[in-house]
Amino acid sequence: MAKVADNYFKADPWRIVEEGFKPEYGLTAESVFSLGNEYMGVRGYFEEGFSGERLLGSYFNGVYERQKAASQGYKGIVQETEFMVNSLDWLYVRVSAGEESLDLAVSRFADFERVLDLRNGLLTRSFVWKTAAGDIEVKMERLISMVHNEEAAQRLKFTSRNYQGELCVRAGLDFNTTHGGDKMELWNCTEQKAEGNCCSIRGCTKVTNMEVESFCRLDGSLVEKGTAKTITEEKLAAVEYTCMLAAGESLTLEKNVIHITPLARKENTVKDPQGRLEQMSFDGLLAENSAWWQQTWEKSDIEIIGDEENQQGIRFCIFQMFQTYHGAIQGTNIGAKGLTGEAYNGNAFWDTEAYCLPFFLFHDKQAAKNLLYFRYATLDEARKRAEALDCKGAFYPIATISGRECCSLWQHASLQLQASTAVAYGIWLYEKLTKDTSFTEEYGLEILIEICRMLATRGDYNADHTRYGYYCVMGPDEFQMMVNQNCYTNYMGRFTFRYTLEVMERMKAEKPESFDRVAEKVGYSEAEGKDWQEKADAMYIPFDEKRQLFEQHEGYFDLPHVDVDAIPTTDFPLYHHWSYDRIYRNDMIKQPDVLMFLLLFNSAFSEDVIRKNYDFYEPRCIHESSLSPSVHSILAAQLNKPEEAFDFFKFATRMDLDNYNRNSGEGLHTTSIAAAWMNIVYGFGGLRSDAELLSLAPSIPAQWEGYKFRIVYGTEVICVEVAEDKVLLKTMGGSEIKLCIYKKEVTINGQEQAFAIPA
Amino acid sequence: MAKVADNYFKADPWRIVEEGFKPEYGLTAESVFSLGNEYMGVRGYFEEGFSGERLLGSYFNGVYERQKAASQGYKGIVQETEFMVNSLDWLYVRVSAGEESLDLAVSRFADFERVLDLRNGLLTRSFVWKTAAGDIEVKMERLISMVHNEEAAQRLKFTSRNYQGELCVRAGLDFNTTHGGDKMELWNCTEQKAEGNCCSIRGCTKVTNMEVESFCRLDGSLVEKGTAKTITEEKLAAVEYTCMLAAGESLTLEKNVIHITPLARKENTVKDPQGRLEQMSFDGLLAENSAWWQQTWEKSDIEIIGDEENQQGIRFCIFQMFQTYHGAIQGTNIGAKGLTGEAYNGNAFWDTEAYCLPFFLFHDKQAAKNLLYFRYATLDEARKRAEALDCKGAFYPIATISGRECCSLWQHASLQLQASTAVAYGIWLYEKLTKDTSFTEEYGLEILIEICRMLATRGDYNADHTRYGYYCVMGPDEFQMMVNQNCYTNYMGRFTFRYTLEVMERMKAEKPESFDRVAEKVGYSEAEGKDWQEKADAMYIPFDEKRQLFEQHEGYFDLPHVDVDAIPTTDFPLYHHWSYDRIYRNDMIKQPDVLMFLLLFNSAFSEDVIRKNYDFYEPRCIHESSLSPSVHSILAAQLNKPEEAFDFFKFATRMDLDNYNRNSGEGLHTTSIAAAWMNIVYGFGGLRSDAELLSLAPSIPAQWEGYKFRIVYGTEVICVEVAEDKVLLKTMGGSEIKLCIYKKEVTINGQEQAFAIPA
Repeated sequence: MAKVADNYFKADPWRIVEEGFKPEYGLTAESVFSLGNEYMGVRGYFEEGFSGERLLGSYFNGVYERQKAASQGYKGIVQETEFMVNSLDWLYVRVSAGEESLDLAVSRFADFERVLDLRNGLLTRSFVWKTAAGDIEVKMERLISMVHNEEAAQRLKFTSRNYQGELCVRAGLDFNTTHGGDKMELWNCTEQKAEGNCCSIRGCTKVTNMEVESFCRLDGSLVEKGTAKTITEEKLAAVEYTCMLAAGESLTLEKNVIHITPLARKENTVKDPQGRLEQMSFDGLLAENSAWWQQTWEKSDIEIIGDEENQQGIRFCIFQMFQTYHGAIQGTNIGAKGLTGEAYNGNAFWDTEAYCLPFFLFHDKQAAKNLLYFRYATLDEARKRAEALDCKGAFYPIATISGRECCSLWQHASLQLQASTAVAYGIWLYEKLTKDTSFTEEYGLEILIEICRMLATRGDYNADHTRYGYYCVMGPDEFQMMVNQNCYTNYMGRFTFRYTLEVMERMKAEKPESFDRVAEKVGYSEAEGKDWQEKADAMYIPFDEKRQLFEQHEGYFDLPHVDVDAIPTTDFPLYHHWSYDRIYRNDMIKQPDVLMFLLLFNSAFSEDVIRKNYDFYEPRCIHESSLSPSVHSILAAQLNKPEEAFDFFKFATRMDLDNYNRNSGEGLHTTSIAAAWMNIVYGFGGLRSDAELLSLAPSIPAQWEGYKFRIVYGTEVICVEVAEDKVLLKTMGGSEIKLCIYKKEVTINGQEQAFAIPA
Repeated sequence: MAKVADNYFKADPWRIVEEGFKPEYGLTAESVFSLGNEYMGVRGYFEEGFSGERLLGSYFNGVYERQKAASQGYKGIVQETEFMVNSLDWLYVRVSAGEESLDLAVSRFADFERVLDLRNGLLTRSFVWKTAAGDIEVKMERLISMVHNEEAAQRLKFTSRNYQGELCVRAGLDFNTTHGGDKMELWNCTEQKAEGNCCSIRGCTKVTNMEVESFCRLDGSLVEKGTAKTITEEKLAAVEYTCMLAAGESLTLEKNVIHITPLARKENTVKDPQGRLEQMSFDGLLAENSAWWQQTWEKSDIEIIGDEENQQGIRFCIFQMFQTYHGAIQGTNIGAKGLTGEAYNGNAFWDTEAYCLPFFLFHDKQAAKNLLYFRYATLDEARKRAEALDCKGAFYPIATISGRECCSLWQHASLQLQASTAVAYGIWLYEKLTKDTSFTEEYGLEILIEICRMLATRGDYNADHTRYGYYCVMGPDEFQMMVNQNCYTNYMGRFTFRYTLEVMERMKAEKPESFDRVAEKVGYSEAEGKDWQEKADAMYIPFDEKRQLFEQHEGYFDLPHVDVDAIPTTDFPLYHHWSYDRIYRNDMIKQPDVLMFLLLFNSAFSEDVIRKNYDFYEPRCIHESSLSPSVHSILAAQLNKPEEAFDFFKFATRMDLDNYNRNSGEGLHTTSIAAAWMNIVYGFGGLRSDAELLSLAPSIPAQWEGYKFRIVYGTEVICVEVAEDKVLLKTMGGSEIKLCIYKKEVTINGQEQAFAIPA
């Protein structure tokens, strides 16, 4: 855990501020200043062009390309992978003043400032361009609409201090973008138009044949006063405006943009892009965004008193989480880097259900439901995947965009079952927290049956047929490969069997027609249910009674021991420094495995068992997953280890702002962002959601004066305010909610009630 | 074991005969009619060109190319592989009679016969070419010298029956060859010359930059009488002879060839190729070959009475074994397909020491020594490989040409230690059988020390430090992956430690200066030896006392059971029909693992233990390795299960002649050929070579009337003749040898002695 902050941005409760520009932080700043709205995302790159190092990244959710994998060609090993593809540069501008072109890698400039405002999603960059002929104040603003998925806008302002001469600005839509380290050109451009003050362009991915159409309209004083020249080149549509700029004078250019991708085309949400462009304005979108964010912060803000850095950090996390996903479109998912970079190929992992879903369940039920719906929309792909793996039912992919497995490492894609069981867990948690059974009835049961079929065919009985379980698997801990009877996998398998059987019994009783519809559709037979019951009952959960320890997998306790603290820090990350097989030959773990299910089903275990397992497994864990520390922090808080809890929390909220892993330049750790939220609410707040009643047990880190958070529960918002010695609880709407506080049942309402924090 | 013969060739004790040509057997016949002499090999393809399906394969030992592997990019995973490359077509001829070109895919022909004579290595093909203008008898002969590595010859004869007209034959050297399924062109041709009746050509591989120079001289009545035209095109050097052919008349063309490859260049064996070509003749080479083979058969023949098919089969095996390798060049190795095809990339495996070495140890001590020398010549590469795998010492490759690891599947290359321990076993066996300690003193100790260093750093102690062994390994059985404490690996590891310590003690006492030289060279310290002793003593050999069963690896006995007999035959080979991970999730094994060390160190185990383990493991084995049945057959013979022994033997000698695996077209199963020999000599002959004295315990399959074999032992040849009820033993040279027959110590000499076969 030798992670060190690389502090660059200025602390501020509601804004991310960069004062002065240091090129060595360029990529990180591009990631941090990413804008997005679930439908699209764009990195904070310099729109006027930049000859220094950068990653000009512009992405659309669900727009991906496909390529052959470096595969070993055996059955069930992925032969093709899919990846979110870098798309057009719709912020494209080029600026020149007389002979000089603007390029911050070359041009002289001063007073650089870049600010992302978390209250409205506005990104503003300003500096003084010191040309040989005089100084020009430059201000560039951009935003992506949180209200209209397909819309975005950009605004430039040039104010001459003492410059007198020609200003030439070219603005348009550019498909001359490349993808990835190999600089692949992935787009065929079939149309580019520039007419009057409007441009449009149409690109198509080469293999998947996905079409993106973009339209823009240019406006502002530069457009009104300047002479215009339309430009259409290969993959580029733009208009170039030239105008005299006098000292003290300002010129502005506004670009409103609409993108139509397959997702919008499917919903047919944009019928008349040109017509809509006439009505759009930067200020209009900004006002809508401000209102949207105000409403969102009201339900979702976390306030930390006495720790400005974590205050900024957690708000940045919540902001980026909503930018990445807020249920705007049914059937989208959350990539490991969101829409902020090409690393992890835009693929979504089990992080979605294990880490992100709780965040949305406590903020926006519909968004959570949409997220789960992705797994229903891709159920057929999971069925095909199960078939490829010689299983029945559905096997959910470890990494995916379209529902197809995109992980070409068989040791992960074929051995990790936790994506499938996490889907079952997600359905369960959604139902438990929302009391809404409609998802289960309409979609969930079908998914659950298919997962059970997989679980019943992927597993095996041991030699004497007394124990059922999974052989040759990899649990969540990716440092133990091809193990047998992994405790997490078995535990989740048993949970899935039992929950599915329970859902079926309930539906048979309460909604027999819904049950029959699903049972008939998937050809379910009672013999299957009986088999699942038997397998659930025979499921082996390795447990050492004497030490009260779960054994991570059969034989784990006898593995050679490695003292992880003795590993030199220069050996990290181990994947780069250790021979691949060496990583797996000992009892070292990469991330929580036993501790993971102790958290997911926390109320099922005594504090004593949790403590003993925490004390055993934590020292064996090297936390080489960005999701690992938060899980440990939450349990440490529960076990009254406040220092340890704060230690693990330390970089949760500022993982990317302080570039702890030194790779934020590739994109944000979007799903870790969800873990940061859990770290505060589940960790310090002590929220638990797996028992009958919601429960809270807040503690306060010694480093803080207080903190407040809000969660949506049913139709209410619960406000939790934690001070040094007490907790204040109320419901925002005034309705009564029964919950547990420090294991005591209470009913809260619109009147603030105080509870003392136990010693 | 549902393997079925596809009988095509005619049975004959000393010849392989093809009567009539069936194109669907074309590839198999090309493999079967391969010629070779260790230095070079050539498939039995039609030299006059053929527009049907074929694999024009011409290979030189040690001439290989390199390419990027489809790799996962982690440390220790092979990024580049090397493969034996298809080289020039030195048999190149083109024949036309008037307007018609000869191409057996198109031309009319009759009386086709192809014969490989195992007594001299002559391959003869004859047929009557029925042109529209009349019939021409065609005879084409070829051979590769067993005496002069670089030399080969070809002879064509055309006899007109009733054809009258022009005959045009073009003959030369052609580098327009392609490699592999992708038809890669791997050669740069830097020179092609045709002058008078001589041609020469020079090619160079593109990446490894290996140069092959070939020279040929043309002779015969066609050369004398015809008009000649020299031809040099890109990658081709040839001479075209045109001559009138009258009815009843014959024309001949002889081509003598010399190839200089890096192996010859290193030894500088060919100083004046043009001069040598003047002296060479087809008949001269043939006479030398006949003498060479006569001498070889005298020491190495196996005669089977009453079973013509196996008689032909075993002689074909012995013939191909010597063609592939006979110690002609120091530092060559034996590829899995010899020099007969591109499958397995010309790579050599542990088969060399485990299967091929005993064959040579009982036929030609020097050849065996040269084979072991390959591991010394490549010790530095094995050191580098150990470093890549975070081990000390030397880690020998699973698959190699030049000594570098060429297996890009990490689950084999990083997890299988048996190549390294087999080298130690080879050194031990060589010393035991030859009583020659010079190899060990000069090379062996250095190798052994480095292997021990690897074994001492790749292994680990278990959690409580009571058991040493290997974690995350794959034993010889490739259907159990990433297992811990594999019995074979641990057993061989312990053997290697102990044998090395023993060698060191002996050398310290007997050859202290040799010991000191090596110890100093590799920086050996006594502390290392102490460590190895401790690790050998703590080595865990999983064994169930009650059942007297070795456990293949820790936890194997509790694995889910699969009834291998219940697997539908259409599922085989499993690698093609089962999901990759499914293969590993049960107690099914692919090939012997426990049984393998019970064979290698047979005398160390009681018959009872061998029987119990055989009875346990054999039913779990699917024999998906071509080497597996012979091991089982040998043990079945020992355990007095004659029917089972003969069942497993059934396709050993005719694996390729009857194309049992339906892939002989890709090349011969060269290393299985060695197992076929072992199957008779170790199996039915009951030969054991791992105890102090050589022992024999012949039995006779009910299907045979008798059999005879000869083995070289020390400087003597032991003749073993087995009849229905008795065994006759003598030494050919008349000297006395002490050995065990049916566990009884006897001394044999030049006088035949009879021993009754026990009931």
